[in-house]
Amino acid sequence: MTFGRVAVVGLGLLGGSVGLAIADNLPDCTTTGYDADPATRLRAAERGLVNRVCDTAAEAVAGADLVIFCVPVGAMGDAAAQIADALPERAIVSDVGSSKASVAEALRAALPGATVIPAHPVAGTENSGPDAGFAHLFRHRWCILTPPADADHAATARLSAFWEALGARVEIMDAAHHDLVLAVTSHIPHLIAYTIVGTASDLEEVTRGEVIKYSAGGFRDFTRIAASDPVMWRDVFLSNREAVLEMLGRFTEDLTALQRAIRRGDGEALFDLFTRTRDIRRSIVEQGQDDARPDFGRSDH
Amino acid sequence: MTFGRVAVVGLGLLGGSVGLAIADNLPDCTTTGYDADPATRLRAAERGLVNRVCDTAAEAVAGADLVIFCVPVGAMGDAAAQIADALPERAIVSDVGSSKASVAEALRAALPGATVIPAHPVAGTENSGPDAGFAHLFRHRWCILTPPADADHAATARLSAFWEALGARVEIMDAAHHDLVLAVTSHIPHLIAYTIVGTASDLEEVTRGEVIKYSAGGFRDFTRIAASDPVMWRDVFLSNREAVLEMLGRFTEDLTALQRAIRRGDGEALFDLFTRTRDIRRSIVEQGQDDARPDFGRSDH
Repeated sequence: MTFGRVAVVGLGLLGGSVGLAIADNLPDCTTTGYDADPATRLRAAERGLVNRVCDTAAEAVAGADLVIFCVPVGAMGDAAAQIADALPERAIVSDVGSSKASVAEALRAALPGATVIPAHPVAGTENSGPDAGFAHLFRHRWCILTPPADADHAATARLSAFWEALGARVEIMDAAHHDLVLAVTSHIPHLIAYTIVGTASDLEEVTRGEVIKYSAGGFRDFTRIAASDPVMWRDVFLSNREAVLEMLGRFTEDLTALQRAIRRGDGEALFDLFTRTRDIRRSIVEQGQDDARPDFGRSDH
Repeated sequence: MTFGRVAVVGLGLLGGSVGLAIADNLPDCTTTGYDADPATRLRAAERGLVNRVCDTAAEAVAGADLVIFCVPVGAMGDAAAQIADALPERAIVSDVGSSKASVAEALRAALPGATVIPAHPVAGTENSGPDAGFAHLFRHRWCILTPPADADHAATARLSAFWEALGARVEIMDAAHHDLVLAVTSHIPHLIAYTIVGTASDLEEVTRGEVIKYSAGGFRDFTRIAASDPVMWRDVFLSNREAVLEMLGRFTEDLTALQRAIRRGDGEALFDLFTRTRDIRRSIVEQGQDDARPDFGRSDH
């Protein structure tokens, strides 16, 4: 049922964490890895992110029964094309991309006939690169699989078992629905964080030094999100354009209504919203997706 | 130079932390406290937030040489009116409100002739109430004093020394400028967080359960901010309306530009902004206003 040989293509935060999590949780599984950046390959070998770092993607996937693409979503098609001739016939192909419909299309176009089961572990930090990964990244996090309608059930079940072995909880979802859900819970929050940090750094009346000094009032939490990998996020917004624009439209409507409430001095409307939003926080903490402790439970890592 | 007797009016997160910080750092200073809510007074006495919890604000300020109002900014005027007749002539009056021009006006109107030096310690958590305070809340945080143009320099110096004794770093600023700076670094981030959490909970295509499950992708950090005290924040937006609307206008412009870049598939514009915002994060961590460690250094508390 489990995989004997996993190839990880892309050895940044996600790819490195996959390799380390396999080493921790699936001792019988050997891993190979490849990254387009030679410096990343060198560092990945030093840290032992996978058992063997290869000089080409084709070399990495030879003999693999699972290939996981951990590159920015805009680079999936090119990365897949590099291994098209080397991919073992019975290997399952998957990924960790944050948008799913466009990635599924890119992988299937580059690898016609391959068994492609796209996946998205909803986990990450603001750090990136081969030094950022850690074995527990996926523990207690959700991993969403978006198998196509005609997918092989046994393949989906094997991939589910794999992610569960790494500590994740697995959910199966339609790719289009995934893209809508993640637009709300991840993409729009990132877009907003990038925007406000940009706005703050362009002001003339308030210096950048002042913004930094007084960031503890709320702003600093946005800067953490806005420090995420620029290439990864550029690709997410381009590849999930439709759902992002749809959700952004809803957000802008709601913000305009709040703006009007402030202008009119409508304290009741403000109070009502501010009270309602507390409940969601409570549910998130109760369901273990965040922690009420001052360190958010991050000391568990 | 230091104060012998400090009265704290309002015993929530901020008031409680002021009391506990005084006990830790100024052992020769005795504290009295009052809160309009009897249950809060009871709990404050149990936790020992101040040396003596009083049944009226007037009783609390009798004999004080420093009175600090720690109530929502919209309640400052009423709270001050309650102690107008009991305020010792030479006492300094201050506060911890998040907007300063309107609070200064309310305190001076309610206490004509009193020495009023408004203050804003830029520190807090998403928790509120008498159980939320802790002695180290102000450590390494900035406290902004906004003395009026005709303020007594000695009074300002005494209040500065007081906040430094509690662990804060002090900055002197014009009230109007404070309100603009904090609109960017605190008020708009809160407004945006409240909005997106509201938007997410109103969707029909995405259930609330899904929003909660997949919140680790960025959304959960917004829910933390959006769990802050509703009354406090309602008052902040109503009292700092002009600066908030001005900064909200800039933010909306920038968001519209980003929306256009996504619609047009302009990856370069997205990449440029996403790269720029990383620098600010680095500066914030370097200047000790946040921490790159996974727990944000919160384990120091």
